[in-house]
Amino acid sequence: MTDDSTIAAISTAHGVGAIAVIRLSGEKAVTILEKIFISPSGKKIARQEANTLHYGSVTDNGNVIDDVVVGLFKAPHSYTGEDLVEISCHGSLYIQQKILEVLIANGARLAQPGEFTLRAFLNGKMDLSQAEAVADLIASTSKSFHKVAINQMKGRFTEEIKKLRERLLNFVSLIELELDFSEEDVEFADRGQLIKLVTEIKTLLEKLKNSFSLGNAIKNGIPVVIVGKTNSGKSTLLNLFLKEDKAIVSEIEGTTRDFIEDTISIDGIHFRFIDTAGLRHTEDTIEKLGIERTYKKISQADIILLLIDPTKEEDGIVQSVNDIKKQIRGLDKKLVLIINKIDLLKDNDITRIKNAILPLLVENEHLITLSAKKGENLNNLEQTLKSIVHADDIAKTDVIVTNVRHFEALKLACEAITRVAAGLENQLPGDLLSQDIRECMHYLGEITGEITNDEILGSIFKNFCIGK
Amino acid sequence: MTDDSTIAAISTAHGVGAIAVIRLSGEKAVTILEKIFISPSGKKIARQEANTLHYGSVTDNGNVIDDVVVGLFKAPHSYTGEDLVEISCHGSLYIQQKILEVLIANGARLAQPGEFTLRAFLNGKMDLSQAEAVADLIASTSKSFHKVAINQMKGRFTEEIKKLRERLLNFVSLIELELDFSEEDVEFADRGQLIKLVTEIKTLLEKLKNSFSLGNAIKNGIPVVIVGKTNSGKSTLLNLFLKEDKAIVSEIEGTTRDFIEDTISIDGIHFRFIDTAGLRHTEDTIEKLGIERTYKKISQADIILLLIDPTKEEDGIVQSVNDIKKQIRGLDKKLVLIINKIDLLKDNDITRIKNAILPLLVENEHLITLSAKKGENLNNLEQTLKSIVHADDIAKTDVIVTNVRHFEALKLACEAITRVAAGLENQLPGDLLSQDIRECMHYLGEITGEITNDEILGSIFKNFCIGK
Repeated sequence: MTDDSTIAAISTAHGVGAIAVIRLSGEKAVTILEKIFISPSGKKIARQEANTLHYGSVTDNGNVIDDVVVGLFKAPHSYTGEDLVEISCHGSLYIQQKILEVLIANGARLAQPGEFTLRAFLNGKMDLSQAEAVADLIASTSKSFHKVAINQMKGRFTEEIKKLRERLLNFVSLIELELDFSEEDVEFADRGQLIKLVTEIKTLLEKLKNSFSLGNAIKNGIPVVIVGKTNSGKSTLLNLFLKEDKAIVSEIEGTTRDFIEDTISIDGIHFRFIDTAGLRHTEDTIEKLGIERTYKKISQADIILLLIDPTKEEDGIVQSVNDIKKQIRGLDKKLVLIINKIDLLKDNDITRIKNAILPLLVENEHLITLSAKKGENLNNLEQTLKSIVHADDIAKTDVIVTNVRHFEALKLACEAITRVAAGLENQLPGDLLSQDIRECMHYLGEITGEITNDEILGSIFKNFCIGK
Repeated sequence: MTDDSTIAAISTAHGVGAIAVIRLSGEKAVTILEKIFISPSGKKIARQEANTLHYGSVTDNGNVIDDVVVGLFKAPHSYTGEDLVEISCHGSLYIQQKILEVLIANGARLAQPGEFTLRAFLNGKMDLSQAEAVADLIASTSKSFHKVAINQMKGRFTEEIKKLRERLLNFVSLIELELDFSEEDVEFADRGQLIKLVTEIKTLLEKLKNSFSLGNAIKNGIPVVIVGKTNSGKSTLLNLFLKEDKAIVSEIEGTTRDFIEDTISIDGIHFRFIDTAGLRHTEDTIEKLGIERTYKKISQADIILLLIDPTKEEDGIVQSVNDIKKQIRGLDKKLVLIINKIDLLKDNDITRIKNAILPLLVENEHLITLSAKKGENLNNLEQTLKSIVHADDIAKTDVIVTNVRHFEALKLACEAITRVAAGLENQLPGDLLSQDIRECMHYLGEITGEITNDEILGSIFKNFCIGK
């Protein structure tokens, strides 16, 4: 995965900036720097203390490339755990490229994506889940995803996993001790205690596993689709949402704005409105529920907002609701029925319509009345969207799984611990129990990187950017 | 132009990177940082030595935004000459933005474009021409422009200007001393010596002024147009150039590749081929010299390559040459006539054609024979292009003027010194001489910033990027 070369890369975003930073890490970092760096006072970087900054020039065969500031970190107290030099130069592309070239000409190698972080992992500066959190952190665009990523980087997720693994280790040690004394038929591990412990661990693993649906929503945003007949107010509702200035993401993502879907952020969770570009400009794209395009949009969404204009289709409301319910039957979708244009209705009409619809609804289906045009009751819809994704859990829970790899490992760990629980119940012999416990521990170890291999590392770090 | 606020900005290129750097400069830089920075060891940044690096977390009301490394510089030994803190964080847009927000919430102000460099100038860390060189350096995409910019940033240009100004000051002091003793009709300043000195300074100023045409070429690239009848080989020639892998600029400019003209770099000087996108794809756009479009292209170019296919138009060559010479008469254009397809001609045919054309050519007009198709004699054309822009002067000359503002000031300084020379010749009285010398000194002072005002500063720094 890596070797003992000294690696170099431009670590700041690609482009012209006021300054740029080039990183150099490895045994020869200081030696290579000395070849190209001249301090006005003639001091040698190799003789300087760790964690210090030094002004000077980077040169190429005597020609000054740039005046820079060099930050010196020494092994093991650096990001990578190796000697590490950060060269802060003027942010011209020419200069960035040129300094990188000179470093390479003097013995460094261009770093692979994520290779600095890979070295940090291999040198024990962080575990694998923390390394993955670094990539997440860099990619984070929302408050909630940022929070989960920073928690994971701080090792909170790993702590929890490691604690579980330790308890399993205690457990399996006792059982394996019994095996050594198998002739004597002793029970070092109190089975009653063990059943209690396994149940507890199983509950914890399942909680973690289940947090993935929220974690995934936090990481990728929740796809939402608005469907409804022509003039039911779809674009008015969306515009209302977007105008409310909750679309932090569009501000932050700047230039990519044109390519992304419309996104609103409620309490730091992103809701992505599918295919809304078309929706906003051509109000009447969806003539009728059930057409292929609507099907497709519904299949991509987690949440479906069905907008109903009660002034036009009161007789058809129940039919519409049943139609859409039929379409999403058996799929894991959340449905929100929205009776729009309540400003045009009398209170008792609203009540009557509500009473007609409510009996049709089951779990995960919600009914809201509002006026998109007047902005009435928009808050209700926001609260409903929040409650659907259990947004409040983010504040309560420290550990949320956002990573597919962790989710897969947790699933397998859960299966193994479930077998252990069943085994205990059926009084299976210790050697069989031990095998399943070890398997569970294996999967937990894969998450933290205590168990790993080049394939796992390869697939993790290939998604990093170069320079990290 | 600036005030005593503490200013903050993201200083690395906009976008997602492995790391990003946020700068904070001013009296309260450390105080503001202390409010949001927590070191794991609990150390206080204010008590740390200058030029040191510190690991810790940036927090917002107790919530960790990111783990960062803080670089501490203390006044006056920093880029701005003030207390300066550089926060190196994970390069997520969310985190960059959030840290900037927190700094501002704690008392910093968002920096204006170039405000860090403006403060460096105002605090005497660099003169104005050096400050301008910083912007040039950041914008530099070619080897030669980079070299000129780095020389200017190193103060070589300013040194020369300051030396001239000092000599003028000596000179004017003597003359003004004479005025004090005017009743006695003494001459402290030996007029013969003075004439020699003024002549010398005038020569130097003119040399600097004249270097601007090269400087401008280095800075902006030299616009070149290829004209010629259909199938004379225009696109073959251009493709040959581009294929030769001299187009460093297209590599460097990366994403803007589609918007820029085709550019080749010969010894670090960029030659920009005007409107070549069309040229390459539709060989026959220019049917005939003299059409409006060709006129326009010629007017934009400094160098005109007239490509001639001698196998088709031998009889018309002289006519073509005369046509184009007529078009550029009185304009400051360089003409290169290229007899293409020499691989299809016998040696004595080539000689005959050369002999027919050579008598038509005057200064700044060149004749070259080559075969674009076979790649024969391409080197001749490159040498000619280089010689036209006096590329070799770059290696010889330390000081080249690339800045329009400097050029304008030098022009006015030249005019003033010319008046001084004339005045000396006509034995003008000292007070009149003194006035012109002072004027010359004023314009030289504007270049270095010894003489300045808000308007000059404003127009210089508005073109900087934020964060520099």
